[in-house]
Amino acid sequence: MVDQFESTDSVRSGAPLRYLRSAVFPEPLGLRHGETLPGVEVAYETYGTLNEDRSNAVLICHAITGDSHPARHDPDDDPGWWEGLVGPGKAVDTDRMFVICSNVLGGCRGTTGPGTINPATGIPYGSDFPLVTVEDMVDVQKRLVDLLGVKSLRAVVGGSLGGHQVLCWATRYPEYVKTAVVIAASARLTAQAIAFDVVGRNAIQTDPSFHGGQYYGTGEHPRTGLALARMLGHITYLSSDAMTRKFDLDRHAPRDIVTDFEKRFSVGSYLAYQGKQFVGRFDANSYVAITLAMDNFDLGATRERRLDSFRGAKCDWLVVSFSSDWLFPPAQSRELVALMTTLGQSVSYCEIETDGGHDSFLLPKDIKQFAPLVAAKLGAPKPNEPSSRPDDDRILELIPANSSVLDLGCGEGDLLARLKARGAPLLCGVEVSTDLIAATMQHGVDAIDYDLNVGLPEFPDGRFDYVVLSSTLQVVPNVEHLLEEALRVGRRAIVGFTNFAHRTLREMFGLEGRAPKAPGSYSYDWYNTPNRRFPSIQDMLDLCEKMGVVVEHARYYDDTNGRVIGDDEDPNLAAETALLVLSKR
Amino acid sequence: MVDQFESTDSVRSGAPLRYLRSAVFPEPLGLRHGETLPGVEVAYETYGTLNEDRSNAVLICHAITGDSHPARHDPDDDPGWWEGLVGPGKAVDTDRMFVICSNVLGGCRGTTGPGTINPATGIPYGSDFPLVTVEDMVDVQKRLVDLLGVKSLRAVVGGSLGGHQVLCWATRYPEYVKTAVVIAASARLTAQAIAFDVVGRNAIQTDPSFHGGQYYGTGEHPRTGLALARMLGHITYLSSDAMTRKFDLDRHAPRDIVTDFEKRFSVGSYLAYQGKQFVGRFDANSYVAITLAMDNFDLGATRERRLDSFRGAKCDWLVVSFSSDWLFPPAQSRELVALMTTLGQSVSYCEIETDGGHDSFLLPKDIKQFAPLVAAKLGAPKPNEPSSRPDDDRILELIPANSSVLDLGCGEGDLLARLKARGAPLLCGVEVSTDLIAATMQHGVDAIDYDLNVGLPEFPDGRFDYVVLSSTLQVVPNVEHLLEEALRVGRRAIVGFTNFAHRTLREMFGLEGRAPKAPGSYSYDWYNTPNRRFPSIQDMLDLCEKMGVVVEHARYYDDTNGRVIGDDEDPNLAAETALLVLSKR
Repeated sequence: MVDQFESTDSVRSGAPLRYLRSAVFPEPLGLRHGETLPGVEVAYETYGTLNEDRSNAVLICHAITGDSHPARHDPDDDPGWWEGLVGPGKAVDTDRMFVICSNVLGGCRGTTGPGTINPATGIPYGSDFPLVTVEDMVDVQKRLVDLLGVKSLRAVVGGSLGGHQVLCWATRYPEYVKTAVVIAASARLTAQAIAFDVVGRNAIQTDPSFHGGQYYGTGEHPRTGLALARMLGHITYLSSDAMTRKFDLDRHAPRDIVTDFEKRFSVGSYLAYQGKQFVGRFDANSYVAITLAMDNFDLGATRERRLDSFRGAKCDWLVVSFSSDWLFPPAQSRELVALMTTLGQSVSYCEIETDGGHDSFLLPKDIKQFAPLVAAKLGAPKPNEPSSRPDDDRILELIPANSSVLDLGCGEGDLLARLKARGAPLLCGVEVSTDLIAATMQHGVDAIDYDLNVGLPEFPDGRFDYVVLSSTLQVVPNVEHLLEEALRVGRRAIVGFTNFAHRTLREMFGLEGRAPKAPGSYSYDWYNTPNRRFPSIQDMLDLCEKMGVVVEHARYYDDTNGRVIGDDEDPNLAAETALLVLSKR
Repeated sequence: MVDQFESTDSVRSGAPLRYLRSAVFPEPLGLRHGETLPGVEVAYETYGTLNEDRSNAVLICHAITGDSHPARHDPDDDPGWWEGLVGPGKAVDTDRMFVICSNVLGGCRGTTGPGTINPATGIPYGSDFPLVTVEDMVDVQKRLVDLLGVKSLRAVVGGSLGGHQVLCWATRYPEYVKTAVVIAASARLTAQAIAFDVVGRNAIQTDPSFHGGQYYGTGEHPRTGLALARMLGHITYLSSDAMTRKFDLDRHAPRDIVTDFEKRFSVGSYLAYQGKQFVGRFDANSYVAITLAMDNFDLGATRERRLDSFRGAKCDWLVVSFSSDWLFPPAQSRELVALMTTLGQSVSYCEIETDGGHDSFLLPKDIKQFAPLVAAKLGAPKPNEPSSRPDDDRILELIPANSSVLDLGCGEGDLLARLKARGAPLLCGVEVSTDLIAATMQHGVDAIDYDLNVGLPEFPDGRFDYVVLSSTLQVVPNVEHLLEEALRVGRRAIVGFTNFAHRTLREMFGLEGRAPKAPGSYSYDWYNTPNRRFPSIQDMLDLCEKMGVVVEHARYYDDTNGRVIGDDEDPNLAAETALLVLSKR
């Protein structure tokens, strides 16, 4: 039975002091909204060692209630909130990297925030703490990075609010960031996500113990309002399916906990418990300040403005989303990827299949899924050599060295890996499973999780020299659209397919009146084939004619006998497979 | 530009007194949880006239914050909350029906609730008001129905909590209900939906003005907590897409309203406004009582228990869900339908495509979509005669009169209408669009909105004499599963399809090496056909053989020449279409 009270909180609750450092920056900090803080203090931790050329620093950015402790520093240390991702030999490998993580501006885990003494008054800022933004948080991190002697960041990595910080770093300090890893984040929150935050802040700020934010020293703090806000937050972090799994079978049997909140329903006791736990470790003013920073984070209300925001970025990107995340839905991550591809930036993207909801970025089982992507992006040691398939040999013959290539349906990325070995300047694969995305990325090539039934990722016109569609066209419903798009983003398309009118297939159909079967793409039965399209060579040539597409080269193969079809033969009868090099008139 | 503040509240805010009636039941009311209320008063309204045989009464059940006023009584009257559905000539036609609607037990719009004077103390019940359930609400409605001289209900109709009341009526008073219309409801709330209610109630009950529920007469009431609960409710009633549409472009420009709540973000001002409006018209104790009734509504934690709950129902059902409703997701409605079909009950189902979220059941634009379904179920005047297609003529020849038939892919229900005219005892269609569902229902036949790619609705074994698959099999991926299911729920299956090996198609393919095209199902090009399967007659016979399916009859047609294929011909070459009557060995 699942422990109902299991929560990502359990690993977020302790910020051990043993490795905690503090940096004081006495210079005034100008904030985005015009106010100034008279100096800031930053709580941080580091892992590993900065190498000689200072090229191995990785900055980890935490989410709303996180802290500077993503991982344990030694076996006796408390576990951190990203233990599965950060550590010796892990995706963010502290044996190879110098890892930095600091508590955010406005927080309550050591960095200057509303609970800090205001030097002007001698009492905590409280409601006098200015409105801070994600940009301000990043500016403070920049001071820390400078202090540590780091001149550029091998990577900035974060989820949720941490992902916003990554986006901000990459667009605000483009010269400093080599790789940006954006997990479960977006260019701006949904209106729905803001609405939940509004209700949470209203609960805090209308709590009579809030005292307009000046509750420090009163012996009170807005426990009830903060607990309500946290309960609400927890609902939005979980998927509905996960809540059903945890709370549905025994919904009328709440755990018997000491609480002033409602004591009905198992999910009610869970929420009361989470609220209570949180109130003991977090400051309400910080909760207000940080959620406001999230809600105000905004890379633009329109696509044009968002493009402007991303235009200056110079990093390569990894974007990760979670299928059941409804607070930062995958569609928002795909939109980030579309901005990056539109601008010709290097990006890999994967949507992780999980019922973990937004919390997935902190869940060990889901970290296991996306850690290989992060490791690949951070240049972890390569896996096996790419396997050499005859299909790929033929395609490689048709592509000049130094061509840029997009491979639609790239599988494990073997073709792309071989193109890379030949020195191709720009490569990208498109696939639909996490494993294939990871395998392709492990060859050091970008891969994008995208459904070709929808179309292509939004690349600009003529982005690639070649777009490859090898044994792909027969499974998509929208053949014309896919070909049009391939010839928009590529100067040429290479289409490889099995000829459905090959002699043996024609005989099966023509003489026996049965749906033909052949080795390769058409080795299935008519009633269970994954294929949706069954073109002959002539069909494909007819379609090219109709679409005004030029067939620059055509190669036809008799695979059974391992030979190329001669000019004196009818390829539509004699060829088992075909490779066409297409371009627009 | 959409008015951000437009809300279903605007039509829910007034309960005019002119037509409001009150019924007092002095007999004690035993409640489900063991307590007793010393008599109840019920506020209600009626429309139209009870006919002589008392067979035209329709009970309308309202949702959480509704009242007894679903529609105007005359042109000068205030509009009601279901104006688009109820009235002269509308789906619930007050010219033909005697319509009853009462405020629920526990409410604050005239029926006994926490604000009512407790005769034992002489002050309002407040927190002494007992825990009431949907069953108790329905028991009170039963008293009213009896008082009005109604012996059975032509229909009970409701959405959300109103839908729960309908489910309760149909299972608790099965002899009284002829038709049950269940809109945007479920056998029990999701854990997530309960969680939102828990937070809302906690906000109310921790408000210092709540005074443990005894705030009447103190001059205070828990305005803040109730407003917070309402804000939260509003988020769950809207879809995320609708919120984006309303609030996203000018998110940083809140409307300037007078409020003690946060004044940031356009969605923030909307929530503050809705909270404030609500506090002026609703009692916090009623909100607590009614949400608890919803959360406790539970027709069973397991499928078996839910089946037990439904087993006694004798009505025919109409279930309606909304695609973007995430508070009562369509999957829950489909599960209701599955319980009903499993038990062999008569049910029609439709999922309305909308971005209106849970609120859709109150939105005029969505009422327009489901009103025709309600009208059809309540026997509104019939539309045109069914059209007679030759395909259907041939199928009708194969089905003996008095056979029960399930038509998979029933289109507008023409075949079913003709079967009905012949006196078939049990008919049902399966389709995927609201228009087709409505058209089929208008023939007086049940139709179920279901994706055949998933399978069939959960009918019991042998529920139908015949299952018809006419020009349907070629578009589904899971042919074997669909045939298996068809032969599980039907004693026989009739499969009609176009023969892909017909002479002209073979010639196109065999001689020209091009994907064949033919009139009918295969009139598309290879690259844009909606078909996924291309069986010949021989292919289909081979599959039957493999599956152990008996071909009882086979009819083959030369449609071009309007003749049946003779015994001396090869049907796989000569027939354009085929009709097979199949059964299991």
